[in-house]
Amino acid sequence: MELWYTEEHAKDVRFSIKVDKQLCSVQSDFQRIDVFDSKEFGRFLTIDGLVMITEKDEFIYHDMIVHVPMATNPNIKKVLVIGAGDGGTIRELSRYSTIEKIDMVEIDKVVVDVCKEYLQQTACGFDNEKVNLYFEDGLKFVKTKENEYDLIIVDSTDPIGPGEGLFTSDFYSNCYRALNENGILVNQHESPYYSEYAKAMKRAHKRIEEFFPICKVYQVHIPTYASGHWLFGFASKKFDPISDLNEEAWNNLKIKTKYYNTDIHKGSFALPNYVKDLLAEAEK
Amino acid sequence: MELWYTEEHAKDVRFSIKVDKQLCSVQSDFQRIDVFDSKEFGRFLTIDGLVMITEKDEFIYHDMIVHVPMATNPNIKKVLVIGAGDGGTIRELSRYSTIEKIDMVEIDKVVVDVCKEYLQQTACGFDNEKVNLYFEDGLKFVKTKENEYDLIIVDSTDPIGPGEGLFTSDFYSNCYRALNENGILVNQHESPYYSEYAKAMKRAHKRIEEFFPICKVYQVHIPTYASGHWLFGFASKKFDPISDLNEEAWNNLKIKTKYYNTDIHKGSFALPNYVKDLLAEAEK
Repeated sequence: MELWYTEEHAKDVRFSIKVDKQLCSVQSDFQRIDVFDSKEFGRFLTIDGLVMITEKDEFIYHDMIVHVPMATNPNIKKVLVIGAGDGGTIRELSRYSTIEKIDMVEIDKVVVDVCKEYLQQTACGFDNEKVNLYFEDGLKFVKTKENEYDLIIVDSTDPIGPGEGLFTSDFYSNCYRALNENGILVNQHESPYYSEYAKAMKRAHKRIEEFFPICKVYQVHIPTYASGHWLFGFASKKFDPISDLNEEAWNNLKIKTKYYNTDIHKGSFALPNYVKDLLAEAEK
Repeated sequence: MELWYTEEHAKDVRFSIKVDKQLCSVQSDFQRIDVFDSKEFGRFLTIDGLVMITEKDEFIYHDMIVHVPMATNPNIKKVLVIGAGDGGTIRELSRYSTIEKIDMVEIDKVVVDVCKEYLQQTACGFDNEKVNLYFEDGLKFVKTKENEYDLIIVDSTDPIGPGEGLFTSDFYSNCYRALNENGILVNQHESPYYSEYAKAMKRAHKRIEEFFPICKVYQVHIPTYASGHWLFGFASKKFDPISDLNEEAWNNLKIKTKYYNTDIHKGSFALPNYVKDLLAEAEK
């Protein structure tokens, strides 16, 4: 017998992983959540039929969503994380002793429960005393905050289903208000390559630009995401991710990472012309 | 009816493209050559069941294999290209009026014939008067040359089948001899992500290092190659791809590109830690 997981990266493009076993399949109030085990990628989590993380390459996503803002401003103390139910973002943030408080808002408790049971590689940091876990709608939560956070990380699913609200102008404007004067917003920014993802990327970029004076995009190689070419958005009130990068301070922390380093931090903001063109179209 | 092309990116990982029509299928003396048409990628060429180029993203590969060395040394005049039967590398090189001579050595004339018939997007530069086309074994051809070229581009298939000789120590040592004192060698360097590709990458890196004092690796997003995370090797006798990069000279040429720019030139040499570790293992 052979069991294959297949995902449509685009209408006419499929990515398939040979599966040893389906470990879990749950329909929550919000979405369908599955965990599979495989030889190539280890265990992997899918939500509504899209790969969220695999044990093999989750380090890439989590390194790049966390260490880029943390190296730009080493004085980040208060962090809000929205989404991130697998726990990987919390795990990486927990490595900074300088962080005083992490509020994490995940709409779907079932994701956290499933990851605690099946994906301990990422779901290992929820008990950290700095972490306050809220099972609420991130959109509503952030509305109640003002001038409070140094960093907001939006570690969401794609802008379909429960993740949709996290790509709206309303949400970004509330993030702006919830951030203090040093505030940085990092979000997963979809991909430039297949047209449906590129549309979502342009829309997010356009909306974030309405509110933040500094608004850049950086890229990363994530082989299990559509096209493998993934983007993050870096928006902020005053910190520039390149000119304000404090390389020495970050390197002195001696945080061991498998993907991130301060050279790739700088390198990842250099984008191909076709991606720059797509972003420029969005800025019009 | 649905027709799907499927490639194994690793033993347990498949990448599939919905095909409108198979345009051509030939068994040459060396390999099996197919051309398909598809909605997402346009026409695409496969050799022995591996995607070589697609009309949608060939610009990425050809931009990065050609413009990186050309921007590093704007005085490149004599170029040897090995492999590259689809014509894309020649097409990009032909945009430099400073180049005086391009010798291209492709072992399999059938690849060129097929591309001339079905892939005019890349196979449009063979008639350029600067191009001398040899249908020979690149390994043997390069042995006969000494102190002749400013640049050798090895645009080969993977190191299985006819491409195998182009990944040997013998070949690299002959490339070294065929290059003059300004010589640069760029080769497609496989991928770090799936283990079979990573093995080939490490082997190539180890062998090139035996001969060239400067030996670096740069990365690129090519969604239709295994993992989408692809590498090129940059080896040279004296030019460093970062410190010798002549940004102003290249930008003054006003060559319009869809992927390459001098920022991504620099950024692409910043590698993730896990890739640096693999290369360091090879250097031992």
